[in-house]
Amino acid sequence: MKISERVMNCELSPIRKFTPLADAARARGISIYPLNIGQPDVETPREFFEAARAFSDPVLEYAPSAGIPAYLDAVHGYYERLGQPLERGCILATAGGSEALSFATQCILDEGTELLAPEPFYPNYAAFAQLAGARIRPIPTTAEEGYRYAERDRIEPLINERTRAIIVTNPGNPTGNVLTRAEMRVLADIAVEHGLYLISDEVYREFTYGEESMASMLEFEHARDNVIVIDSVSKRFSACGARVGALISRNRELMTQVMKLCQTRLCVATLDQVGAAALYNVGPEYFAGVREEYMRRRDTAYERLMRIPGVVCRKPEGAFYLMVKLPVDNTDTFQQWLLNEFNDHGETVMLTPGEGFYATPGKGVNEARLAYVLKQDRLERAMELLALGIEAYNNR
Amino acid sequence: MKISERVMNCELSPIRKFTPLADAARARGISIYPLNIGQPDVETPREFFEAARAFSDPVLEYAPSAGIPAYLDAVHGYYERLGQPLERGCILATAGGSEALSFATQCILDEGTELLAPEPFYPNYAAFAQLAGARIRPIPTTAEEGYRYAERDRIEPLINERTRAIIVTNPGNPTGNVLTRAEMRVLADIAVEHGLYLISDEVYREFTYGEESMASMLEFEHARDNVIVIDSVSKRFSACGARVGALISRNRELMTQVMKLCQTRLCVATLDQVGAAALYNVGPEYFAGVREEYMRRRDTAYERLMRIPGVVCRKPEGAFYLMVKLPVDNTDTFQQWLLNEFNDHGETVMLTPGEGFYATPGKGVNEARLAYVLKQDRLERAMELLALGIEAYNNR
Repeated sequence: MKISERVMNCELSPIRKFTPLADAARARGISIYPLNIGQPDVETPREFFEAARAFSDPVLEYAPSAGIPAYLDAVHGYYERLGQPLERGCILATAGGSEALSFATQCILDEGTELLAPEPFYPNYAAFAQLAGARIRPIPTTAEEGYRYAERDRIEPLINERTRAIIVTNPGNPTGNVLTRAEMRVLADIAVEHGLYLISDEVYREFTYGEESMASMLEFEHARDNVIVIDSVSKRFSACGARVGALISRNRELMTQVMKLCQTRLCVATLDQVGAAALYNVGPEYFAGVREEYMRRRDTAYERLMRIPGVVCRKPEGAFYLMVKLPVDNTDTFQQWLLNEFNDHGETVMLTPGEGFYATPGKGVNEARLAYVLKQDRLERAMELLALGIEAYNNR
Repeated sequence: MKISERVMNCELSPIRKFTPLADAARARGISIYPLNIGQPDVETPREFFEAARAFSDPVLEYAPSAGIPAYLDAVHGYYERLGQPLERGCILATAGGSEALSFATQCILDEGTELLAPEPFYPNYAAFAQLAGARIRPIPTTAEEGYRYAERDRIEPLINERTRAIIVTNPGNPTGNVLTRAEMRVLADIAVEHGLYLISDEVYREFTYGEESMASMLEFEHARDNVIVIDSVSKRFSACGARVGALISRNRELMTQVMKLCQTRLCVATLDQVGAAALYNVGPEYFAGVREEYMRRRDTAYERLMRIPGVVCRKPEGAFYLMVKLPVDNTDTFQQWLLNEFNDHGETVMLTPGEGFYATPGKGVNEARLAYVLKQDRLERAMELLALGIEAYNNR
């Protein structure tokens, strides 16, 4: 019996594929410092749990396919405070940012079409393109240039009659890049001029450590029909397990089509939407505290990396990832070795090998993504283990 | 800018498409009796809410992509009690039965392939086939024969080189059909002999009112590689808003492929899995009570229907739906009229027009699906409104 070609050609997630080796290491008594997955250790605001506990309907009913009013209102209010009032119907609740990505790609990609993405990119972008019968056409960047990409000269030569959209993460995963307003405008202009959708994955919006204020592609009025924003409570409120996000666009025709997909899955979990709505009541002091914490972690991770001879890395300006070139032959082999053969006092470290973040064959083989999601002392130890691991691996 | 062909050709859900008209009727002060949607009014067992309230992790983290151990163990135990022990890895948690259907169809259907389904069928089957680039090839049935379909003569002539799978709901939605063991075996045999997957949507398993004991296609050992079971807590425990289900199969290769899709959406909501796991602790007295209640409702709905001249309907043996042929020219027009123009003492009724349950053009135009999910007195009033509506509609 056959498996569909689209699924057959999909890869297992490079971020999650080492889970079996990690389980085996743990079974041998090894303790692992996870820098591989974007699972923050910041406490979820108690507002979520309090709202979920206060839910008193006797029947846990389906929610409306578009989302419960309380959640849609909360997201609406958040964008209003951001200076982006949205009309009714421009926000649809989704099961995390992932479902918003799945719906956006399903709605705009056909067999044989192309999706432009700066590489390195979040690996699920390639999976969603592949599942829609399309492929990623990478916008090349380099570690040495800090992975910057928002330039006409880099992007326009890649556009052809098969191109349907540009997809970007801002702030960036895996690079930590934060686009300047000028760079954002370049992307919006290109999308408008070439009639492309611009999928802007803004789930890390609050995590910026530089001069730029919080941004959204929704700011560009002339690109109102082009822009599709991917949003989520996962990172914003450290509520990854809630699986509540949103797809946001002012393009009415597109939203009508997305609604068809919303109806196929009936609704997003009711109780989680209740909790997610309450999360939007947390004050600005919450974000200030979290930002300060992540900035400190970024500084620690970056400084520790810079002490390792041969590492190439630019200090990231946002999100909570670092993309680095490591002085090893192959980060995939290195990660396997870290789990199977290495330990220092019974401890080792996990990162995500870089190849899965690239569409271009051969690229990223000595790169890796690090998520600086651990508390200060654990992060320091993780970086120490990485340095010890690199040395031992190259001397093995 | 283009919308993908696959989504463009999808229809809005016939079960949910009248929501705007219903909202308008409510705004005019009309009270609506909903027989259109399979949302039971039975109380969700308190075990769900108690477990969710007791959740005390400070961080609401991602769950494993395959599901949390407590939920997988609970489903495992349930199938063991059903006489179907499953090996590790044969159960994957999904966001309701809907996601399990989406994953199954994505994994086995390619562009241009066909999925056999007895019609009338649950309309989202057609949507999921369409999204995978495939189409439903209907197995014809008639209201007069009680919509029975599990016969070699009906099914085998429809199989060709494009056929990938047979999909059935058992107990049936929208027909309320319950397959006999002999009929189930016919389907399993056909699947094995022709090398087809057999997707068995068994989310209504507990809702049977006849002689047959609870069943699963997993019982047919010779079809172990063919069978894919769709399961969910939605109907079993009246927990539709939890969005927790499962895809179950003993086909190892298939499950490896499904896991790729599980990873693209990272996980199913953590708190709902915790609640769903606890639901499996409810005792058999819970199901006995619920079954008795639904049986009474079925009897009421059926007897009331039989009093309306011109109605064609067989008494359903399971689930909580009735598929009926009504003495009106077009149930779609009739439903619009019920919402826009009719009321009796400020009240009207909703049902689901039949056309969306058919792939064959022109079929089902004077049929409708009724979900008998209301308490006795409300159900009686709803049936009265339907009778009054039919009379007034035909005399308008």
